[in-house]
Amino acid sequence: MAADGNLQALILAGGSGTRFWPVSRRHRPKQLLALDSDQTLLQRTTSRLQPLIPADRVWVCTTRELAPAVREQLPDVPPDQILAEPTGRDTAPAIAWSVRTMGRDGGDPIVAVLPADHRVEDDAAFRAGLASAAAEVDRFDRVMTLGISPHRVETGYGYLEQGEILNDEDGIREVRRFIEKPDRETAVRFVESGDYLWNAGIFVFRSGRLLELVARLQPQMAATLERIETRPEEIEELYGALRRISIDYAVMEQCDDLATLPLDCGWSDLGSWEALAEVVASDGSGNAIRGEVVMEEASGNLLFADDGLIAAVGVSDLVIVRTADVVLVMPKSRAQEVKTVVEALHDRGRDDLL
Amino acid sequence: MAADGNLQALILAGGSGTRFWPVSRRHRPKQLLALDSDQTLLQRTTSRLQPLIPADRVWVCTTRELAPAVREQLPDVPPDQILAEPTGRDTAPAIAWSVRTMGRDGGDPIVAVLPADHRVEDDAAFRAGLASAAAEVDRFDRVMTLGISPHRVETGYGYLEQGEILNDEDGIREVRRFIEKPDRETAVRFVESGDYLWNAGIFVFRSGRLLELVARLQPQMAATLERIETRPEEIEELYGALRRISIDYAVMEQCDDLATLPLDCGWSDLGSWEALAEVVASDGSGNAIRGEVVMEEASGNLLFADDGLIAAVGVSDLVIVRTADVVLVMPKSRAQEVKTVVEALHDRGRDDLL
Repeated sequence: MAADGNLQALILAGGSGTRFWPVSRRHRPKQLLALDSDQTLLQRTTSRLQPLIPADRVWVCTTRELAPAVREQLPDVPPDQILAEPTGRDTAPAIAWSVRTMGRDGGDPIVAVLPADHRVEDDAAFRAGLASAAAEVDRFDRVMTLGISPHRVETGYGYLEQGEILNDEDGIREVRRFIEKPDRETAVRFVESGDYLWNAGIFVFRSGRLLELVARLQPQMAATLERIETRPEEIEELYGALRRISIDYAVMEQCDDLATLPLDCGWSDLGSWEALAEVVASDGSGNAIRGEVVMEEASGNLLFADDGLIAAVGVSDLVIVRTADVVLVMPKSRAQEVKTVVEALHDRGRDDLL
Repeated sequence: MAADGNLQALILAGGSGTRFWPVSRRHRPKQLLALDSDQTLLQRTTSRLQPLIPADRVWVCTTRELAPAVREQLPDVPPDQILAEPTGRDTAPAIAWSVRTMGRDGGDPIVAVLPADHRVEDDAAFRAGLASAAAEVDRFDRVMTLGISPHRVETGYGYLEQGEILNDEDGIREVRRFIEKPDRETAVRFVESGDYLWNAGIFVFRSGRLLELVARLQPQMAATLERIETRPEEIEELYGALRRISIDYAVMEQCDDLATLPLDCGWSDLGSWEALAEVVASDGSGNAIRGEVVMEEASGNLLFADDGLIAAVGVSDLVIVRTADVVLVMPKSRAQEVKTVVEALHDRGRDDLL
């Protein structure tokens, strides 16, 4: 494909969160963890791109705090392509700043923006989708997003409404609008209609095109980023003053020729311990197991031993997660409540455990 | 009381077991653990005797493997009164061997034999019972056992059937027979009749009297113990050849003038995690807690953090026990099944965790 040699990846790896506490910590967020395989999600995100995008065309945007761990996990990515934001300002500043840096040598690469913390089962299908999107960008200079074909009703994701067909062969269609997490009834309608995709935060565009959009739609951000380039010694102050805003809000929802290509690749954003339980291989009793476990009449549990051993007798449908300093026990169905535990520990002054 | 100055304690601290795994280990059995308070059960067993039996009249029989830990836990007990069996041979050899040693200087002390791993809430009542029993032994040279007045139907203990009243004031009665763990119907009848006590393994006797009984009822054991005294260099071989037998079988059940005194002192043998849950102070939701815990809508659980933190969300009536290397999770009602986990780990070659 003509575009391939010019296709570069920008992996967004600066995120933080508490949904995989106690395994995830402030200094070791989800993307740096091996949750569903022996590689970390960041490592899988990178290795999944081979051979379409080799490591020397991978860029990573992370935070200064996480940069050492990112470099360690990705020894094949050139260190100067691991960009460290002074402080996180959501995806729009991260992408715009990184894309400016990626085009600094005067090139106009095609950039595929990829979250670092998602799971994909079918790597080949994923790469094929990226390649098709890149070809479309190369030919028509569109901004593309890769949406996920939904196989179930899901109220936890944002959706993309597809419009007119642009390229029948690849299933490329216009994006009519972005829809935030819908209620159940709406989600059912979306999935049944076949006209909606999950918004997975995956975008492909020509670097110059994205920067034009930023300049037009977010002139203040563009001006600040330009100033950072001329006065790199002021980056802390300037970057810190940028408004927190996502690329969806800042650019994509206002881009009138955004197009989408549906991906069917066993995608999951692994949004909770419960979501992880669904994808980790389970034993004959429906127990999803990572690490060393001994069981007696246990079924439907997620048993995750990051450290030491979990012994479970006569329990069902629980999440049990053991680290060197904590054990978390809760029903799978209440996995969303991890954050209340995290808040309680913060209130108790136990940030050392967070 | 006349007998007090001659009253000595013999604490049996050589036992092992798996019911408090993973906190209890081969090298750190139950009696050496602080399960229900900040002191270990052995330390409480010793401190409970003060001032009736001061530390310099306390003897401990344990195994060679455990002796260093026992000495460390009981710095006030003279080190030469901590006796270490070469190998455990159940209570009859342990008691007979220890009692010989205790009387070696020619005295004929009154000895109170006490298991090291039981819980007692009312120390004063316990001491009063011991003092009454010792006085009875001093006056009539009886062999006494202190039975526990049962406040509930219990099929997990042995019972003592009481016979004729011997001393109305203290409630001392003959022991008519020993009954092994009864079925439920029998246990109900026992408790309702008021004629039965739980056998707690607590005995009081004059040292010479016990040794006469051993010589008469267990002549081979007595001969071996005598030989050990004349050839201490052969103790490993001689002691190892002793038959494993409990003091109940070997002596007490055949002793025709055994008498009993009922104790009402909040006694428990702490036979399982579930039993511990019943005696550890609980919060408003019935959670019994030891160590650092954070909870959200959790009720009726035993949360025992020997190391690190336990976070429990939306779970009920579970035992959750965390050590530095293991977490055990099971319903309280299945606490007896710890042993199946221990067996599974043994079969897996993980004796390092046992």
